[in-house]
Amino acid sequence: MTLSSSPLPRQAAIIGGGVIGSGWAARFLLNGVDVVVFDPDPEIARKVGLVLANARRAAQALTPGLLPPEGRLSFAESLEAAVGAADFIQESLPEREDFKIEMLARIDAAAPATAIIASSTSGLLPTRLQSGMTRPQRLVVGHPFNPVYLLPLVEICGGSASSTEAMDQADAVYRALGMRPLRVRKEIDGFIADRLLEAVWREALWLVTDGIATTEEIDDAIRYGAGLRWSFMGTFLIYRLAGGEAGMRHFLAQFGPALKLPWTKLEAPELTDELVETLAAQSDSQAGDVSIRDLEVKRDDCLIAVLKALREQDFGAGAVLKAYGAQLSADRAQLSEAVDLNQPLRLHQTTVLAEWIDYNGHMTESRYLQVFGDATDALLALIGASGAYVENGFSYYTVETHIRHLDEVGQGEALRVETQVLGADAKRLRLFHTLYRVRDQSVLATGEHMLIHVDRKAHKACPAVGEVANAVARLARAQAHLPRPDAAGRSIQLG
Amino acid sequence: MTLSSSPLPRQAAIIGGGVIGSGWAARFLLNGVDVVVFDPDPEIARKVGLVLANARRAAQALTPGLLPPEGRLSFAESLEAAVGAADFIQESLPEREDFKIEMLARIDAAAPATAIIASSTSGLLPTRLQSGMTRPQRLVVGHPFNPVYLLPLVEICGGSASSTEAMDQADAVYRALGMRPLRVRKEIDGFIADRLLEAVWREALWLVTDGIATTEEIDDAIRYGAGLRWSFMGTFLIYRLAGGEAGMRHFLAQFGPALKLPWTKLEAPELTDELVETLAAQSDSQAGDVSIRDLEVKRDDCLIAVLKALREQDFGAGAVLKAYGAQLSADRAQLSEAVDLNQPLRLHQTTVLAEWIDYNGHMTESRYLQVFGDATDALLALIGASGAYVENGFSYYTVETHIRHLDEVGQGEALRVETQVLGADAKRLRLFHTLYRVRDQSVLATGEHMLIHVDRKAHKACPAVGEVANAVARLARAQAHLPRPDAAGRSIQLG
Repeated sequence: MTLSSSPLPRQAAIIGGGVIGSGWAARFLLNGVDVVVFDPDPEIARKVGLVLANARRAAQALTPGLLPPEGRLSFAESLEAAVGAADFIQESLPEREDFKIEMLARIDAAAPATAIIASSTSGLLPTRLQSGMTRPQRLVVGHPFNPVYLLPLVEICGGSASSTEAMDQADAVYRALGMRPLRVRKEIDGFIADRLLEAVWREALWLVTDGIATTEEIDDAIRYGAGLRWSFMGTFLIYRLAGGEAGMRHFLAQFGPALKLPWTKLEAPELTDELVETLAAQSDSQAGDVSIRDLEVKRDDCLIAVLKALREQDFGAGAVLKAYGAQLSADRAQLSEAVDLNQPLRLHQTTVLAEWIDYNGHMTESRYLQVFGDATDALLALIGASGAYVENGFSYYTVETHIRHLDEVGQGEALRVETQVLGADAKRLRLFHTLYRVRDQSVLATGEHMLIHVDRKAHKACPAVGEVANAVARLARAQAHLPRPDAAGRSIQLG
Repeated sequence: MTLSSSPLPRQAAIIGGGVIGSGWAARFLLNGVDVVVFDPDPEIARKVGLVLANARRAAQALTPGLLPPEGRLSFAESLEAAVGAADFIQESLPEREDFKIEMLARIDAAAPATAIIASSTSGLLPTRLQSGMTRPQRLVVGHPFNPVYLLPLVEICGGSASSTEAMDQADAVYRALGMRPLRVRKEIDGFIADRLLEAVWREALWLVTDGIATTEEIDDAIRYGAGLRWSFMGTFLIYRLAGGEAGMRHFLAQFGPALKLPWTKLEAPELTDELVETLAAQSDSQAGDVSIRDLEVKRDDCLIAVLKALREQDFGAGAVLKAYGAQLSADRAQLSEAVDLNQPLRLHQTTVLAEWIDYNGHMTESRYLQVFGDATDALLALIGASGAYVENGFSYYTVETHIRHLDEVGQGEALRVETQVLGADAKRLRLFHTLYRVRDQSVLATGEHMLIHVDRKAHKACPAVGEVANAVARLARAQAHLPRPDAAGRSIQLG
């Protein structure tokens, strides 16, 4: 089912079906490649199925409708049967060098001569791993990260006998799977990533061993701080920015002396003039023509995006942000003065964010409705139809929306909404929002919305109750004298 | 302007206005606290202003409209003048122990006796820092992370003379600023976070020193892999999940032997039975009652959310994902069979994600328009009005939308859209989308949309050009025989 021009294999063999092997199986299957798994675990089919279900869910969220029909999944009775017809073999067995050498030799003996053989090893040397193979040139390390179906990184490292062609082929296969190969140019134990991860891991083990902190405290020390940055920028670029306007050289001057301090059990290399020059030059090259200021903006945009994403998950730093917002809302309610119900209501303002911009360079259409939806929520909060009222089983649902998109608006523009209540009865509330650009007070859009009051458990409309009913009636009366907008009640007609 | 019940100080003094000090100034100001900054740098006002501008932008994005009026910012001519009327003092001077001890003694002598004095040191010991102070009990470490106005983590650590009351007060102040204090229970060089960061940093410096990898390759090894996980889960919880169904014990059994391998220059502690027991017990306690399976789902949900957020930023792993999606789209176009233009068009399907759910437990209203917008985009791709056509200066803009919200839909439901072209002329395209729940084929909503063809540079409507004009005409003719939906042309009326 793969395209003729695709670098993807027709059939992949997965040797070892643990967390990593199952993740590989899912990546290949979801990209349309047939997969044969070998693992002696009698529960292997169930375990691969669980990981595949996770991977399918992720793919549906990230590339909805874009993937080709799934490849076929089967299980082999032996290693030799699994690799016999495979074009690409991914080995993900336990990290025991002798065992891997033996198994890779058996794979090599049983696989078609043209198949690429990749090992998922986290840090064993490919020169050693290929030592028992008849065709060692086709062995490469392809080291992924868990969950394999979500994290793009895969380290590619060859041994002394590995061919450049094999590494290039593996590189092309991994890219076609949506991954981001990192070519490890010098063979070293732990490659690049795991040297860094292993340093964190060992320092963390010392902290537990020495009774300094618990596993939870250590995890919190990462996920509420540096971990947020590491999701999009590595240590070197982050520290370049920490140097302020003077960049990496300034950072090294400021924090170089700390390399002598016992801030970890790992001894630092000597910060010689030569090393400083190398670091500054590589950092300059890495940053390219992008100024510190532009990198700061990108860093902040990414942090904002990540924090908002995690707030929607109510997890980690996102949970902190959510609780902070709730506290600010409570403080604000305490501070806010009474709203004048006789005028169009100014309950919501916001700013156009970069992520709201579409390929035309303007705020994308659904964000107009998001802003109107937020203004509707602000009005519902005003009349008491939020929070506890919703938890008690009542709510207003929007059942109809009419938007006129009147003007474009760009990133960074401040927006405000004026809201007029066009009418209300026991069950219904009809709102008219006008969206203004603050800078020139021009009207960007209008939104007319019919809301129905519902009993959430019964799933049906019902009259508003208690104070909310009173507040709606009071608000509708207060606004009744306002002129009716020309656009109210309009429908879409093709001239 | 702060509330009477707020733990926030009335006035904060910021001693040292570099990247960290300026970040602190912004946090306090944005939360309504008056700030006095002392830094001998003649450019201090400009530098603080730049950081404050970044912080304002972040606050507008994360807590729009929720913050109190900003505090007043001023600059003092001397350290003593800065702290003279402060309730809370945050010192962010260079990491030289002698210098900090001297400055903290001067702060102590000049500040009101009740003020809390916090040091931003990354790793110097508070017992040493407070050694020159007359009132050492009020000195605490409050170690933040750059950018201070975005990252919530702040490590609180007391010295031998620090009072619990001072630490509690600092804790309350930081929480009111939206931060997440981590109490470092045992005083140690580098505290907790910087011991981990410093281990990464030193190992990374070795990799550059030894010529293994460049700064860019090392950064990539983090940001495309483990860094994505670290934005919401620390190493211990991540490795618990890497152990699969058997959890931390299995992980330690599998990767314990690797602690003996030269995968970093840092020696690991002995993985004794006692340490394994401690780690497993702490990890169990950390995970609480949440199963491995539920943690996996949360991990994946957070990774999906972070990847999507970074895709909108077109940065790091988000850029990889974006390019992958583009490649899949191209492959799909190549694979897709001719669409039957005479029937309602099935161009888009998706699944309701957790983040689409609102407080009522159903898909929130703006996501309906998002789905319709995606279906519109799929139709525009079909007629060739996407990609290069847009880059060449033409596009269709939605100018009017009418949505009927007919039924609720919950998380995980598969959705599909059928699209009917109601009419078209040279400049206009009128679409009618019907949103179905796949499970029972029930209709969830309809969306009627008027699109105008525009010259993007001239900012005005113009006739569609070339193949797109032909495709629109062909499509409108092919669909003309289809029955017109009852809801087409409806307007909103209040009974």
